[in-house]
Amino acid sequence: MAKPERHVLVCLNMRPPDNPKGSCGAKGSEAVFDRLKGLVKESPLAERVIVNRTNCLKHCSRGITVAVHPGNVWYSGVTEQDLPEIVESHLEKDAPVERLLMPDIPWE
Amino acid sequence: MAKPERHVLVCLNMRPPDNPKGSCGAKGSEAVFDRLKGLVKESPLAERVIVNRTNCLKHCSRGITVAVHPGNVWYSGVTEQDLPEIVESHLEKDAPVERLLMPDIPWE
Repeated sequence: MAKPERHVLVCLNMRPPDNPKGSCGAKGSEAVFDRLKGLVKESPLAERVIVNRTNCLKHCSRGITVAVHPGNVWYSGVTEQDLPEIVESHLEKDAPVERLLMPDIPWE
Repeated sequence: MAKPERHVLVCLNMRPPDNPKGSCGAKGSEAVFDRLKGLVKESPLAERVIVNRTNCLKHCSRGITVAVHPGNVWYSGVTEQDLPEIVESHLEKDAPVERLLMPDIPWE
């Protein structure tokens, strides 16, 4: 299909470790991206969901940041341990994971 | 705000120039990304629209590929010359640019 049912975006922006803003890359977002992509690839979602890596998603201090469309759902502080729940609850059953939702804060 | 009104994604995947699939990066998508980001930054959309670069958006032969959420609107063959129209028509007035819409083809 030309259009994915869902489009999942993982921030891989990397700042130096001593940067006060922090960054998703420095928190291990490459491993989160790789694992999420793998979980989707192994699931029935593989032909319907695209997982992409992006540059800065503008919530550096709250990262690891993940965004999901449609729905404009933004997650903060995502770890590898959270990924099965995001896949099973949100991507498979359309129920976003409430405890990980990004607070309504300005872009950084 | 925590959530952008629109999220624009530009594929910057780069394959070697002799790869038969082609790639958006090899077609100049970094310049498209930079210019689009600049146009948005200079406009009233700056605080409402996020423009991100991504890895492969899976339409290599049709690139440069750009996706816009919400709406799950996918564009093919985007050039720098097309960007003012995408910004003014789609991002400002919610009228996608019909002539650039991605055909309904399988992912590559």
